[in-house]
Amino acid sequence: MRPSSRAPDEMRAISIEPHVSAHAEGSALVKFGSTQVWVTASIEERVPPFLRGKGAGWVTAEYGMLPRATHKRADREATRGRQSGRTQEIQRLIGRSLRTVTDLGALGERQITIDCDVLQADGGTRTAAISGAWVALRLALDRLNAASPFAQDPLPVAVAAVSCGVYEGVPVLDLDYAEDSAAETDGNFVLAADGRIIEVQATAEKAPIEEETLLRLLRLARIGCAAIFEAQRRAVGR
Amino acid sequence: MRPSSRAPDEMRAISIEPHVSAHAEGSALVKFGSTQVWVTASIEERVPPFLRGKGAGWVTAEYGMLPRATHKRADREATRGRQSGRTQEIQRLIGRSLRTVTDLGALGERQITIDCDVLQADGGTRTAAISGAWVALRLALDRLNAASPFAQDPLPVAVAAVSCGVYEGVPVLDLDYAEDSAAETDGNFVLAADGRIIEVQATAEKAPIEEETLLRLLRLARIGCAAIFEAQRRAVGR
Amino acid sequence: MRPSSRAPDEMRAISIEPHVSAHAEGSALVKFGSTQVWVTASIEERVPPFLRGKGAGWVTAEYGMLPRATHKRADREATRGRQSGRTQEIQRLIGRSLRTVTDLGALGERQITIDCDVLQADGGTRTAAISGAWVALRLALDRLNAASPFAQDPLPVAVAAVSCGVYEGVPVLDLDYAEDSAAETDGNFVLAADGRIIEVQATAEKAPIEEETLLRLLRLARIGCAAIFEAQRRAVGR
Amino acid sequence: MRPSSRAPDEMRAISIEPHVSAHAEGSALVKFGSTQVWVTASIEERVPPFLRGKGAGWVTAEYGMLPRATHKRADREATRGRQSGRTQEIQRLIGRSLRTVTDLGALGERQITIDCDVLQADGGTRTAAISGAWVALRLALDRLNAASPFAQDPLPVAVAAVSCGVYEGVPVLDLDYAEDSAAETDGNFVLAADGRIIEVQATAEKAPIEEETLLRLLRLARIGCAAIFEAQRRAVGR
Amino acid sequence: MRPSSRAPDEMRAISIEPHVSAHAEGSALVKFGSTQVWVTASIEERVPPFLRGKGAGWVTAEYGMLPRATHKRADREATRGRQSGRTQEIQRLIGRSLRTVTDLGALGERQITIDCDVLQADGGTRTAAISGAWVALRLALDRLNAASPFAQDPLPVAVAAVSCGVYEGVPVLDLDYAEDSAAETDGNFVLAADGRIIEVQATAEKAPIEEETLLRLLRLARIGCAAIFEAQRRAVGR
Amino acid sequence: MRPSSRAPDEMRAISIEPHVSAHAEGSALVKFGSTQVWVTASIEERVPPFLRGKGAGWVTAEYGMLPRATHKRADREATRGRQSGRTQEIQRLIGRSLRTVTDLGALGERQITIDCDVLQADGGTRTAAISGAWVALRLALDRLNAASPFAQDPLPVAVAAVSCGVYEGVPVLDLDYAEDSAAETDGNFVLAADGRIIEVQATAEKAPIEEETLLRLLRLARIGCAAIFEAQRRAVGR
Repeated sequence: MRPSSRAPDEMRAISIEPHVSAHAEGSALVKFGSTQVWVTASIEERVPPFLRGKGAGWVTAEYGMLPRATHKRADREATRGRQSGRTQEIQRLIGRSLRTVTDLGALGERQITIDCDVLQADGGTRTAAISGAWVALRLALDRLNAASPFAQDPLPVAVAAVSCGVYEGVPVLDLDYAEDSAAETDGNFVLAADGRIIEVQATAEKAPIEEETLLRLLRLARIGCAAIFEAQRRAVGR
Repeated sequence: MRPSSRAPDEMRAISIEPHVSAHAEGSALVKFGSTQVWVTASIEERVPPFLRGKGAGWVTAEYGMLPRATHKRADREATRGRQSGRTQEIQRLIGRSLRTVTDLGALGERQITIDCDVLQADGGTRTAAISGAWVALRLALDRLNAASPFAQDPLPVAVAAVSCGVYEGVPVLDLDYAEDSAAETDGNFVLAADGRIIEVQATAEKAPIEEETLLRLLRLARIGCAAIFEAQRRAVGR
Repeated sequence: MRPSSRAPDEMRAISIEPHVSAHAEGSALVKFGSTQVWVTASIEERVPPFLRGKGAGWVTAEYGMLPRATHKRADREATRGRQSGRTQEIQRLIGRSLRTVTDLGALGERQITIDCDVLQADGGTRTAAISGAWVALRLALDRLNAASPFAQDPLPVAVAAVSCGVYEGVPVLDLDYAEDSAAETDGNFVLAADGRIIEVQATAEKAPIEEETLLRLLRLARIGCAAIFEAQRRAVGR
Repeated sequence: MRPSSRAPDEMRAISIEPHVSAHAEGSALVKFGSTQVWVTASIEERVPPFLRGKGAGWVTAEYGMLPRATHKRADREATRGRQSGRTQEIQRLIGRSLRTVTDLGALGERQITIDCDVLQADGGTRTAAISGAWVALRLALDRLNAASPFAQDPLPVAVAAVSCGVYEGVPVLDLDYAEDSAAETDGNFVLAADGRIIEVQATAEKAPIEEETLLRLLRLARIGCAAIFEAQRRAVGR
Repeated sequence: MRPSSRAPDEMRAISIEPHVSAHAEGSALVKFGSTQVWVTASIEERVPPFLRGKGAGWVTAEYGMLPRATHKRADREATRGRQSGRTQEIQRLIGRSLRTVTDLGALGERQITIDCDVLQADGGTRTAAISGAWVALRLALDRLNAASPFAQDPLPVAVAAVSCGVYEGVPVLDLDYAEDSAAETDGNFVLAADGRIIEVQATAEKAPIEEETLLRLLRLARIGCAAIFEAQRRAVGR
Repeated sequence: MRPSSRAPDEMRAISIEPHVSAHAEGSALVKFGSTQVWVTASIEERVPPFLRGKGAGWVTAEYGMLPRATHKRADREATRGRQSGRTQEIQRLIGRSLRTVTDLGALGERQITIDCDVLQADGGTRTAAISGAWVALRLALDRLNAASPFAQDPLPVAVAAVSCGVYEGVPVLDLDYAEDSAAETDGNFVLAADGRIIEVQATAEKAPIEEETLLRLLRLARIGCAAIFEAQRRAVGR
């Protein structure tokens, strides 16, 4: 029995509200149950030094949590003077996941920075962030396209992510905080809308797992991502 | 003529939504026009070292802006590794303003940290933050009181803040970004609900001002704060 | 009765010794009673990036305290690895106060950095610093003018600052440390020699104050600044 | 054809030299081809604050690269003043991988810190580090056991790791730098000696991959880890 | 011919003004020609962790330069966020030199921190700092002794320091900036008043030197220190 | 009697293995007894800003210790976020010692960075580092010379360094950790192969020393360096 009484393959309620920011070129407020992430995409007409003059663009991401997004207040990273290893790991994952499906040449010499800030955390913040980041990026590209159409769409496929894990011996989909903090195994799966895999990060926290368990988690991830892709389509109006 | 077509003594629409956070003991989403600040109050049953064993509590504040809260994306302070001078100045102001009206002895040996994070900025973020911070603090104290009534209310009076300035030669109330970035003089006024003054910070940005101008700005601040106190009362249900 | 036996509207002895540095283009050692601040003005023939090619100059300030300037030794900021919020707030105030009366266009494309280092602290270090900073800036400009006369004086008016506050219920002028650490209200007033106001920062530390009290503090500040303007005139030889 | 002319399922030469440090309780110099990692295990009879008094121990890891371990010299992290996101990600992975198979209760209230410093890098530094870290940990535990036998072995199973990826369309085992920098997909697999999975991190760098590809990489990892487990056994003398 | 027209074995004018700080337990303003260093000694009735409960005290030093102590303004170390290698090297030297002659057991469990801040620099700041540091330390100990006499004087011998170097092929005493920046060899000599050597740091900047040259520099240092010891005696009133 | 049973003027076994790095232009693993330092020389075809366009090159050094190079594990400097004062002092010494004998004009506009990383520490790490650094630099220059002969050899003389000190009243050569941590006086001597002195740093740790003692230490250093020069010649094949 899951703490939330959900079935093992049941996602939490998903909502992705687009255009939440008056300033950002693309934005979304994504909710996976009580987890809420504010996502903005910012376009700059310049690229990092290593890309200058190469005709290609760049997509990168930053991640943060408001200090009281969590049950217990955490120190503010700006006050501590450095981002934690966890924060850096997550923002690297978000950026990498989007770049895998972005045609950086088609994007042209510009950089899009995705900021994912967690207003409220209840497990799955990184996967909610990736799922919302795709929406913000898509909306920013739509805006660029409306101003001056791309010869080729730089973002031909959607990306969604969900966490799966083994909780009290049972593989379950979309862990909330109560499950996540007690899970034996925790995995994050980033999938493309065509069914292919972008990134798998599965960690046996308490004891090593069998290969079949890994595959079962991947099956659950496919179920969850189907629901997320649907919410994304509604958010971007396609 | 103000960019927003408001009259010189006209506030923007104010809204203060309470209880926006599932975790924080007190919280509010405060909006002054397009400016939006997410405020949480977190109670910890411990005090800073300099207060230990003295029977008194502490109220402090931290302030941050999401990187794309502004027209142009700004670097994330956690990435840069330090809070800017402006950020520190603002968070010191917020904490000081609340402490002036808080009876720290009545609060008892506990610390309340107010986090003010700007989701969207259009001028007046620090005054919106102070106004919302009072609501979050009030709600957190109400919760403590419900669990174990205070002998004496540690927060007997409300606090609100508003910016006033001289724009194109005219003293105006509640500057938005378009006005703020061009104002000749900029002032922040923190007032108590009984009409007394908590803090005045008035800066002649372009040229020194006459004493009458300072007093005119204070008059405008009283008008603005009256509206904010009304919104605060609705938010805390009194 | 004030700890120093001064009358409520009595300044401490003021002295401003010019030309204390062999290297700096302008310099002064300013004393307000036991408070001593070493001030230098350094001219650089370049401007910050945001001003390049705009034909205007810049004036900025930095502030520091020697570790044993105070009764009890404080950690050295260079050792701690960051300037405190208080330090940043003060140096921003000094720079802003001078820029308000400086004609940056008349200055031309150069930057003048004012360094204010407190050798000994007994209250009022920021106001002594501002008062001395004007002298150092004036002397640096005189030197530039002697080498190549300005078409128009970039610094047409003097700036002085003084602290006023409410101590044991009485508004008093120029607080020393004994008063400052116990004051109910503390204000810093930056005035121009023509009587206009450059900056007012008044903080009710213990309880909100009435408007009349604020005005009384401003009256005291005018008295104190008159004495400082006189000392400045002697220091710059006008 | 691989740059090294190896078959797709062929590991590089592996060597693990134990007891390389005169001071550390456990140590090894591990080589995967030209990649060389110096690993030490240091025992401290104290645990991190969150574990105090709980009767359990802790295993953690740190990772570094000598500045000229790579083809081109990189800045020293101690000089830059912070560890990169990549470094933190790797050291978190090493620590997590070892903790999954360590019985922290059986270890008792002590901390073992594994330092993995790359003397020379040619791809696969993190997997070589994990493989060597297990040896250093095993040797440190053997030393503890010799002094005072454990009731139960805190490290009942060996851990090895290897990278696999898709290079020019072909899944290959144990990527060297030439392959790694050009791979379409890159995965790191951490396995237990009993065949179970500890961690999988597979990233589609250039384009999403099919599920079959992921499984093929896992097969290759099993082949590679078999060789590493053999080298580990020789190194620890079992 | 030296830039200052001094003879090779001629010191600059030395002055050591004691009791310059109203707060510090010991203090001095030391001048070697145009070089001016403000030195304070601060007593704290606690010792660093590694000395707790061992019945011995500690003497340590910190060094800084005001930004415009030099011909060209240098960045403030507190702003840059770290002390330079040069600064750390100098403050380590000052502390070490004093500890060599201090009987830390006789001092008792207290720490004395010597702060040396350069108001104006014209070569020899570290040697002026050491020479003044001894005076500040002596005065602080005299004060302790007056309150409660030491069984044994913790500072039985005076310490002075001077720089010597080879300038245009000639060994010279007490280099000023013009010489220091062009010297072929630069040495700092810390001597005890009884003629023994505390520290020698001689660096051949341009080319290696003969042993005779090193000895000639040491002879010059003895001449210079004799004058400094005399100035120290006057400053401490013995 | 020395802890190692060596005679007072007896060096530890010295070994310098050249070409240990596959990537660096020059490299060596230097051992003084149990002290082991991994040294690489990296050539970059650019110079620091202050040398640009001046036709001269630069040689600089960085120093580090693996966390468990020592008896007790030390914090990693990259984790602490700054290099210690000791580290900076040592790396400045290494760079300075090499530059004294390098003809930077003959080197041409390129920078050579010497990285000295201590794998194992048993006293004398800085002198082993300097001795190995010369070998790495020599090998890197030989490689440059082979590609395009220098008109003049930029490194005409060898540099070696050794520590000497007073241990239990006896001047001894090449202190190991047991001696170093108990020595009354500690000196580091950097000598050129032609007998001249590059740098002397002698510190009386416990009590001031006589001039004769300093000279005796220098005699011992000459004996030790003779052995090191011989090992260097073998390492560079001359």
